[in-house]
Amino acid sequence: MNPLTGPRAVAALTWNEAAARIGEDAILLQPMGSIEQHGPHLPLATDQLIATGVADAVMEEFGDARDVWLLPPLVYTKSNEHAWAPGTVWLSDATMRSVIDDIARSVTTLRARKLVFLNGHGGNSSLLAVACREAHLDHGLLTFLTHPYVAADQGGGSPPEELGMGIHGGLDETSMLLHLHPDLVDMALAARSVPESLAPHRHVRFGGPVSFGWSSRDLSPGGVIGDPVGATAERGKALFEAAVAFLGEALAEIAAFELPEAPR
Amino acid sequence: MNPLTGPRAVAALTWNEAAARIGEDAILLQPMGSIEQHGPHLPLATDQLIATGVADAVMEEFGDARDVWLLPPLVYTKSNEHAWAPGTVWLSDATMRSVIDDIARSVTTLRARKLVFLNGHGGNSSLLAVACREAHLDHGLLTFLTHPYVAADQGGGSPPEELGMGIHGGLDETSMLLHLHPDLVDMALAARSVPESLAPHRHVRFGGPVSFGWSSRDLSPGGVIGDPVGATAERGKALFEAAVAFLGEALAEIAAFELPEAPR
Amino acid sequence: MNPLTGPRAVAALTWNEAAARIGEDAILLQPMGSIEQHGPHLPLATDQLIATGVADAVMEEFGDARDVWLLPPLVYTKSNEHAWAPGTVWLSDATMRSVIDDIARSVTTLRARKLVFLNGHGGNSSLLAVACREAHLDHGLLTFLTHPYVAADQGGGSPPEELGMGIHGGLDETSMLLHLHPDLVDMALAARSVPESLAPHRHVRFGGPVSFGWSSRDLSPGGVIGDPVGATAERGKALFEAAVAFLGEALAEIAAFELPEAPR
Amino acid sequence: MNPLTGPRAVAALTWNEAAARIGEDAILLQPMGSIEQHGPHLPLATDQLIATGVADAVMEEFGDARDVWLLPPLVYTKSNEHAWAPGTVWLSDATMRSVIDDIARSVTTLRARKLVFLNGHGGNSSLLAVACREAHLDHGLLTFLTHPYVAADQGGGSPPEELGMGIHGGLDETSMLLHLHPDLVDMALAARSVPESLAPHRHVRFGGPVSFGWSSRDLSPGGVIGDPVGATAERGKALFEAAVAFLGEALAEIAAFELPEAPR
Amino acid sequence: MNPLTGPRAVAALTWNEAAARIGEDAILLQPMGSIEQHGPHLPLATDQLIATGVADAVMEEFGDARDVWLLPPLVYTKSNEHAWAPGTVWLSDATMRSVIDDIARSVTTLRARKLVFLNGHGGNSSLLAVACREAHLDHGLLTFLTHPYVAADQGGGSPPEELGMGIHGGLDETSMLLHLHPDLVDMALAARSVPESLAPHRHVRFGGPVSFGWSSRDLSPGGVIGDPVGATAERGKALFEAAVAFLGEALAEIAAFELPEAPR
Amino acid sequence: MNPLTGPRAVAALTWNEAAARIGEDAILLQPMGSIEQHGPHLPLATDQLIATGVADAVMEEFGDARDVWLLPPLVYTKSNEHAWAPGTVWLSDATMRSVIDDIARSVTTLRARKLVFLNGHGGNSSLLAVACREAHLDHGLLTFLTHPYVAADQGGGSPPEELGMGIHGGLDETSMLLHLHPDLVDMALAARSVPESLAPHRHVRFGGPVSFGWSSRDLSPGGVIGDPVGATAERGKALFEAAVAFLGEALAEIAAFELPEAPR
Repeated sequence: MNPLTGPRAVAALTWNEAAARIGEDAILLQPMGSIEQHGPHLPLATDQLIATGVADAVMEEFGDARDVWLLPPLVYTKSNEHAWAPGTVWLSDATMRSVIDDIARSVTTLRARKLVFLNGHGGNSSLLAVACREAHLDHGLLTFLTHPYVAADQGGGSPPEELGMGIHGGLDETSMLLHLHPDLVDMALAARSVPESLAPHRHVRFGGPVSFGWSSRDLSPGGVIGDPVGATAERGKALFEAAVAFLGEALAEIAAFELPEAPR
Repeated sequence: MNPLTGPRAVAALTWNEAAARIGEDAILLQPMGSIEQHGPHLPLATDQLIATGVADAVMEEFGDARDVWLLPPLVYTKSNEHAWAPGTVWLSDATMRSVIDDIARSVTTLRARKLVFLNGHGGNSSLLAVACREAHLDHGLLTFLTHPYVAADQGGGSPPEELGMGIHGGLDETSMLLHLHPDLVDMALAARSVPESLAPHRHVRFGGPVSFGWSSRDLSPGGVIGDPVGATAERGKALFEAAVAFLGEALAEIAAFELPEAPR
Repeated sequence: MNPLTGPRAVAALTWNEAAARIGEDAILLQPMGSIEQHGPHLPLATDQLIATGVADAVMEEFGDARDVWLLPPLVYTKSNEHAWAPGTVWLSDATMRSVIDDIARSVTTLRARKLVFLNGHGGNSSLLAVACREAHLDHGLLTFLTHPYVAADQGGGSPPEELGMGIHGGLDETSMLLHLHPDLVDMALAARSVPESLAPHRHVRFGGPVSFGWSSRDLSPGGVIGDPVGATAERGKALFEAAVAFLGEALAEIAAFELPEAPR
Repeated sequence: MNPLTGPRAVAALTWNEAAARIGEDAILLQPMGSIEQHGPHLPLATDQLIATGVADAVMEEFGDARDVWLLPPLVYTKSNEHAWAPGTVWLSDATMRSVIDDIARSVTTLRARKLVFLNGHGGNSSLLAVACREAHLDHGLLTFLTHPYVAADQGGGSPPEELGMGIHGGLDETSMLLHLHPDLVDMALAARSVPESLAPHRHVRFGGPVSFGWSSRDLSPGGVIGDPVGATAERGKALFEAAVAFLGEALAEIAAFELPEAPR
Repeated sequence: MNPLTGPRAVAALTWNEAAARIGEDAILLQPMGSIEQHGPHLPLATDQLIATGVADAVMEEFGDARDVWLLPPLVYTKSNEHAWAPGTVWLSDATMRSVIDDIARSVTTLRARKLVFLNGHGGNSSLLAVACREAHLDHGLLTFLTHPYVAADQGGGSPPEELGMGIHGGLDETSMLLHLHPDLVDMALAARSVPESLAPHRHVRFGGPVSFGWSSRDLSPGGVIGDPVGATAERGKALFEAAVAFLGEALAEIAAFELPEAPR
Repeated sequence: MNPLTGPRAVAALTWNEAAARIGEDAILLQPMGSIEQHGPHLPLATDQLIATGVADAVMEEFGDARDVWLLPPLVYTKSNEHAWAPGTVWLSDATMRSVIDDIARSVTTLRARKLVFLNGHGGNSSLLAVACREAHLDHGLLTFLTHPYVAADQGGGSPPEELGMGIHGGLDETSMLLHLHPDLVDMALAARSVPESLAPHRHVRFGGPVSFGWSSRDLSPGGVIGDPVGATAERGKALFEAAVAFLGEALAEIAAFELPEAPR
């Protein structure tokens, strides 16, 4: 669904329609990805293409049933862990926080009370968790944060051959792109790059109980953290469909969600 | 040209390609519009659709000739003069300034030295003029600001029947949308709304030597400032083609532009 | 009229007088210039002297008739395009924006609803256009922005011999100073400095449809952009008187100005 | 170990000693808790007492072995999810972010390269994950984030009788306090307060794949989210000792940790 | 001496002159006052008139001898303790801090190393003490803060009949204005307003070891804190001359001042 | 009295107790020191130990009588005059200002109206004087600022042998530490370091009518400004007891203090 012109695109409405058609029980869906290096075999838009691809399918399948309205995707977000790479365009944490606050403050002119951030870039997750709370406390919205795909450093899984470290440009992300935009993937340049010296760690690891500050430059000469070599469109299709299905369920829960003691 | 996947889309490149293919003489084109009320007959995305529509055509016609690379369009910008309207999503001036600064700072990782802001929303123009200078002074880029369409309050023309006040949702903008997205225009709701009491002014007027602070709510009950009644797709086509042709010329000048005394 | 002690100086009033005498229909006039390099023949205070000289004459001629009250001139403003030059004292864009916001917020304690920024420095114009809107939206004032003299890069004229580029320390500005403070002008050092390489440009030019970020250092070895050689006090007198007459008319319009749909 | 006067307290050193004794392989430990409501039966200092209690024991047991140096605990942190409650003292997210940045920037005067945030308050975790990355990127430190106790909404466990929602003032936290400061716990006021309506959720739940913005006021009339009724000092002792043991292991890994591709 | 056109006015120089004539041993003098209520008998400009009057005389008497160069006075400063009064125009503390920082950063383009803030408004003193240090640390200048007149709450004296509380619009300040601008003083409205309930305090008092936050509205119905009734031009003349003499001595010390261990 | 667990520690209360027991006439005491270099003979925690030591004794002696409630001490404050020294941990002025604002805003959830900053570090005094006013104006609290010990540059005394310049690590401060924590003082390294070249100054001096920006590095090779050689625990005990006695009196005045014209 085109996020500017599609049937449930907020931006395709006039303001009078937005006031009339987006009701109290509607859910606003704000997708976002990033423009950042994803290794020598994937485009800078990788996260953006996954986020918008999933959002598109979710709107098609579940938009009417869950009364979801699509906001235009954010494309520049917080990617400073890849700031070293030509082509990465990143917002500082303060800018990103302000952008989210501005969006949340703006949508209070609508009757909808629920705002969902669908985030395709793991580097945004912590800041969005902060912003999600602030948007609730500062603007009174019910706010939610979810992902089309959870990277291993954010608590998601990673296949054993990646030693739990397939967090950037690895097997799953590459497979997703092969499914969505095979023309933008150059498998000839896909190469394993796993920081093996971290593998023995029990605690200090991606998704472990001790997290650590890193730039992709600290972990990989070429920008990949994972092993994309075995990626296939089939695997990508399965991941994509699982993401869409998950979001369909999640939106059903969100549609029914209330904070039990909150004043309405 | 799709701004994420097209042949001259920065975001469609890998980082290694961005480093290799975007050279010193390349021009980076950053389009932006807005999501803001445009009266009862036009969609919130009006400015965005014009900006991206024009950018698309410009890339097709002139991308190769002028060595232009397209950055993903910004969609949320500074629209607080329409903050009252359900569906307007706006960045504060401080946020918008930071977003532009972050983009400019980010693209210094590329070899390109020239960054062009193609702005489809008049409410951004003054802030972008500031940001354009700051990006040059702070990041050393050669920065440019231009528009696919100049509203009367920013120095552009407006047909006589609009008394020089067709600045928002009026004849020209409505015509452009009729050309680009006729399905999103409801001419049955298009109605003249010109603040006639301002017409006798010689100095204090849109585009005059005395500007004034305004919200669209101060000037129009429904959000339109102008007269869209006579809008046609033909007029829109002519405006669109003129905008593209102008930008083709402008990009040729930009390609040759140097600050005569600046150190390189 | 002395801006601290003159008959219509706000600052010369006690607070009780300010509350009593400055009524709902009064106009507050906030002049501002800059302290910045103006080439080897003009003082750093050039813009400030023009702004305050014009404001003085305007108050004398029109203060009573238009019910104008003079605020103390701002002297340090946004001059970072001349930051390289010894003696330029400049506020960052964020500081300048805050200063304007603070002034606007402060004067809401008065009954006057109209605040006019009289800006003698082109480098401020874009930021003031932003601030003018914000002051209206944030503080409810009717705000106006005008200039004693419009430089070519802000849409004003420039004599043909300057090729439309007499924007800084050129014919008109030098003439104004010769009229106002001949003792501070050293015509022996006045020399033509026009960035001739820009002259063939149709679009990318001062006041053209494509603006560009610049520092005066990029355009002129000595800081002048224009041709002051033919400047005379007579020309300056004519410009000065035209500016005062224009402002007299503008203030009459401002005095009668209302936003037609704004709640009062 | 007293964090101001103890044998491995940074603050107990003179500056010359700090320069001499804290070497390149040393680990700086920055504990922090909060001052925030913890229901009617626990003190405002609950998180602070746990964080400093654990830090104390960790320093005693592992300080020498791991070459750990203790920084003075932060006591006011980001607790705005409890802002409604008398006695909660909270920093805004911007303030908290600045405090962490200032600490990281300051300790670069020491030779130590490793800085560990030991965070006793779940409401800080997301912001600290952001700050941890920024401190690494901006100041070149190796930064780590860990917890003496992981709440269920941050990925930790919660006993079945709390339905996975024992995140604030519940069984474990109350038990910890009964072990550390039984005099500050009033078990007579400990009462179950679990937002049962959330229990059926598969996705939108504490620690689930969809997080949500909340204030404790939205979830509990008295501020508890969990069931402290069965809390015992024995359980607290076990949790405490497990936390200390975990941190001993974690510090061993941290001591050996290097970013494999980072320049040293 | 006119601060824009006088013989030692920085702003009267061209940039080339500023570079050539303001040497390493020169002292830059930045006066500032305020626009704020001073009771029913004194103008809003009171502090400004004292600061600029003293600066003028100091320049005349000592400018050449001490190699002092005058910067244009700041007129809007931090006066929020009088924010309630119509006509007070005040900068927030953050704005004021930024203005001072911008000035200090700007003057580093000159060869002069010494910058003196001459502050006529007690409400600025604490912030300037902060800014003075920051300007030294951040920009490498030797910075100084002094006053033409020290109010009792800043450590200055106050005649016994004012009970040590003549801090705003009282005997001394009124006398100064009677000397400098008798036409702007309305002694008929001068009335004693001393917060007598504070008089018995030993510690919590103006200039005492316990300071307290106040607005003039908290202490005086009309804005005066002191007793202006006995004010005379003679007393004002003596105070004025003492201030000028003191500054002459102070500038001599400043001219010779070096930080003994600072690198030059 | 332990500031987290003691009988009048705010943090030791539950929120319900804080609401119930801290009444309208209660005084909130916020101590703060610093972690900063104090020369080769004193620990980084010197100011912190004095501030918390005095606060402890004050609470013991006067807590009940004056209805004082202790807030947890701030430990990191504004120490950038010692930023050069390994081990100094400092907040920027903006961060520190925000921290104070956040504390003041937070405690408005309590019924207490009076907030006292007890500051053990002279480098904070000016900023706190600003913050004290802002907290009163912005949050409606009655705010107070006092010190356990006033350094010479803040208006306090200094023995003649220090030439009025015993402001950092000198006779008095060292004596205080010898009284409080003799184990942390190494008198063998205590050496006189007085910037004697400043001694002849009448005006430009610590605590004089002309203040100046300095770093301790500018004044002393080792960080001491003063003469600690003659320090004794006896002198320290006397200073300590005088500080406690003074604060007992000060708190009595604060308990009775009202702004005479303020609305309650």
